[in-house]
Amino acid sequence: MTSPAPQIDFWFDFASSYSYLSAMRIDAAAEAAGVTVNWRPFLLGPIFKAQGWTTSPFNLYPAKGRYMWADMLRLCAARGLPLLQPDAFPQNSLRAARVALAALETPNGPAFCRAIFATQFGTGADIMLDATILRCLDDAGLPGTLLSAADDPAYKTALRTQTETAMTRDLFGAPSFTVGTELFWGDDRLDMALAAAWATAG
Amino acid sequence: MTSPAPQIDFWFDFASSYSYLSAMRIDAAAEAAGVTVNWRPFLLGPIFKAQGWTTSPFNLYPAKGRYMWADMLRLCAARGLPLLQPDAFPQNSLRAARVALAALETPNGPAFCRAIFATQFGTGADIMLDATILRCLDDAGLPGTLLSAADDPAYKTALRTQTETAMTRDLFGAPSFTVGTELFWGDDRLDMALAAAWATAG
Repeated sequence: MTSPAPQIDFWFDFASSYSYLSAMRIDAAAEAAGVTVNWRPFLLGPIFKAQGWTTSPFNLYPAKGRYMWADMLRLCAARGLPLLQPDAFPQNSLRAARVALAALETPNGPAFCRAIFATQFGTGADIMLDATILRCLDDAGLPGTLLSAADDPAYKTALRTQTETAMTRDLFGAPSFTVGTELFWGDDRLDMALAAAWATAG
Repeated sequence: MTSPAPQIDFWFDFASSYSYLSAMRIDAAAEAAGVTVNWRPFLLGPIFKAQGWTTSPFNLYPAKGRYMWADMLRLCAARGLPLLQPDAFPQNSLRAARVALAALETPNGPAFCRAIFATQFGTGADIMLDATILRCLDDAGLPGTLLSAADDPAYKTALRTQTETAMTRDLFGAPSFTVGTELFWGDDRLDMALAAAWATAG
């Protein structure tokens, strides 16, 4: 009998700055660790709302927000990632997330997700715009027809379900990683989550 | 001309669980990195209050609180540190912090701080009790007479000033590390802060 292959669920919101960090490295890190990644876009908005927040904690708590951008600048510089603080933060990630669910039914889904993160945080592009989403589909080698998922009731429902699943798994922020019932929060915990995937599978 | 020796300010609240992690390793890590540590106890309470919180965010946001204890368990296990979730969290760190300010005027101050953290998070002791503080002074090779700092107007003022300084430096959580005007938040940033101390001193 063979053990199941080690797996990790990667939960992210396109609007989340620290999710950008994980998105740009998780596939390489997981491959090196021999772990399979399930990319799971969800929306933080309803989760924040449930705990009484009307916007990102980085806006609600200005000192935390100033710190986050300084910290992101340092981390991006260290990793050779471009960072341009967007005019509006957080961006509305609803449409990009629905299209991502469709894109992730193909092997090119992660490339689409990385393109959305990179254009938003690297160049300040507005990810609500059809033009931005279309460009990212193209960058990922995916057909522009996938844009229709942004307004497709099936993907609206799928994204709502995904967010509800995130809530039942006790997620409160992004990025998060789950291995079975174990939860890891933050890009800083990626390595620990990959190790846990092996411990669970082994 | 010699460059100034690399220095780091270590800001902590005895009530902060993640500060326990940093307190137990910072002196060894800093010594290995050739960096001098200034231990700076302060109170998170007034800072949380200023942003509208009446208690720890780990109590205000239950999912975050559940995660914190699970995360602490994993990290403490990995580092060989005992962890016993205290009955009341966060504890009142006021008296221990005032005594720490007095203890830190001696070379044994860090040992006293580690003793307070270890007895609180390792054994569940109540750090408001004179008996606990006296035992930690003794563990650190310091005289019990330092307990008087807990009610000494000079140390009351010193702790208030320290907390106000933390606020002017934009601190919003603990542990935090500062190197000049650069701020690093969380035990996860200790290595980066130590590297920054060299970059700044060099």
